[in-house]
Amino acid sequence: MTDERLEQQLAFALEIDKEKNVFRQTSLSGHGRKENDAEHAWHMAIMAYLLREYANEDVDIAKVMLMCLIHDIVEIDSGDTYAYDEENLKTQKAREDAAKERIFSMLPDDQKAEFTALFDEFEDCRTAESKYAHAMDNLQPLILNNANDGGDWKEHGVTSAVVRRRQEKTRRGSEALYEVTDRIIRENVAKKNLPE
Amino acid sequence: MTDERLEQQLAFALEIDKEKNVFRQTSLSGHGRKENDAEHAWHMAIMAYLLREYANEDVDIAKVMLMCLIHDIVEIDSGDTYAYDEENLKTQKAREDAAKERIFSMLPDDQKAEFTALFDEFEDCRTAESKYAHAMDNLQPLILNNANDGGDWKEHGVTSAVVRRRQEKTRRGSEALYEVTDRIIRENVAKKNLPE
Repeated sequence: MTDERLEQQLAFALEIDKEKNVFRQTSLSGHGRKENDAEHAWHMAIMAYLLREYANEDVDIAKVMLMCLIHDIVEIDSGDTYAYDEENLKTQKAREDAAKERIFSMLPDDQKAEFTALFDEFEDCRTAESKYAHAMDNLQPLILNNANDGGDWKEHGVTSAVVRRRQEKTRRGSEALYEVTDRIIRENVAKKNLPE
Repeated sequence: MTDERLEQQLAFALEIDKEKNVFRQTSLSGHGRKENDAEHAWHMAIMAYLLREYANEDVDIAKVMLMCLIHDIVEIDSGDTYAYDEENLKTQKAREDAAKERIFSMLPDDQKAEFTALFDEFEDCRTAESKYAHAMDNLQPLILNNANDGGDWKEHGVTSAVVRRRQEKTRRGSEALYEVTDRIIRENVAKKNLPE
């Protein structure tokens, strides 16, 4: 077996295993440990399928699911950048571009092009699929944080205004899910889990 | 917001977060910790997309990916049953049936029926999609174990005959990937990572 194409694909499959070691700032429900990027992506992809009836526009759900699954792969090199960490957000793009080039270059050329395009489409957030995938990227940690009485917000001193600004992307993907988001934020403000 | 359907869907989305706490017997590459079911499912779903050209039959890749993502959800209640644990394998079906009923009943009826059917299709392993998904269920831990010099096999005293028997399902989903599997098994026997 000396099929170079298959060897490249298997090397990539092994490389992405490292994403399970990239930990986020969101805690699992039940006041659990922090979750990692692979778990987050798995959760987003299932939620995308489950809630697809609420997308603002018709979406190719296979494309959305794959986008959710791979959207954080670059963090194997660049690490997770917390959504409310203003300093690290400034250098995020350059760090992620280098990571994208290294990791997707492990694939055969056609798949490198395909995965890179899908990653960029997510980042650009202009197509129906990417807007809906971003809604999942925001809603997934929100339901965990809500289940944990806002523990992650408290830990980082995040205010409702900051959470609302980030959740604006949810609205572009799903007005119906933005309503849920808005309700959850208001409830957490009322419960003092999230300062105004 | 008192939309019962959406509330059921969100409750299910929160419930499946628990799958991140179900740990398997497979170790992450780099001689890492044991992986959990959510990470395993995420890895399988990406590999399914990446390697779909090697499926024996044409597959609906969105269906395969979703099947991979949800195939272990019942283990939230029933726990992981190690593939080479003969004793626990005997009670696996009854434990998983009860779990399936409880967990999927959280969904609206139409989605309960859909997810249950997809789960059963995977278990039955007769359609093109389920056979290919099973190939991923076998190949994913194999590449991790291979990267770790057979550490998990050594820990459990598993022989090459037992690994080969399990990997027969890979062949039904993909002859090409079975060739890889066979090569990896032979290499590990030669390296004394796996007794004959």
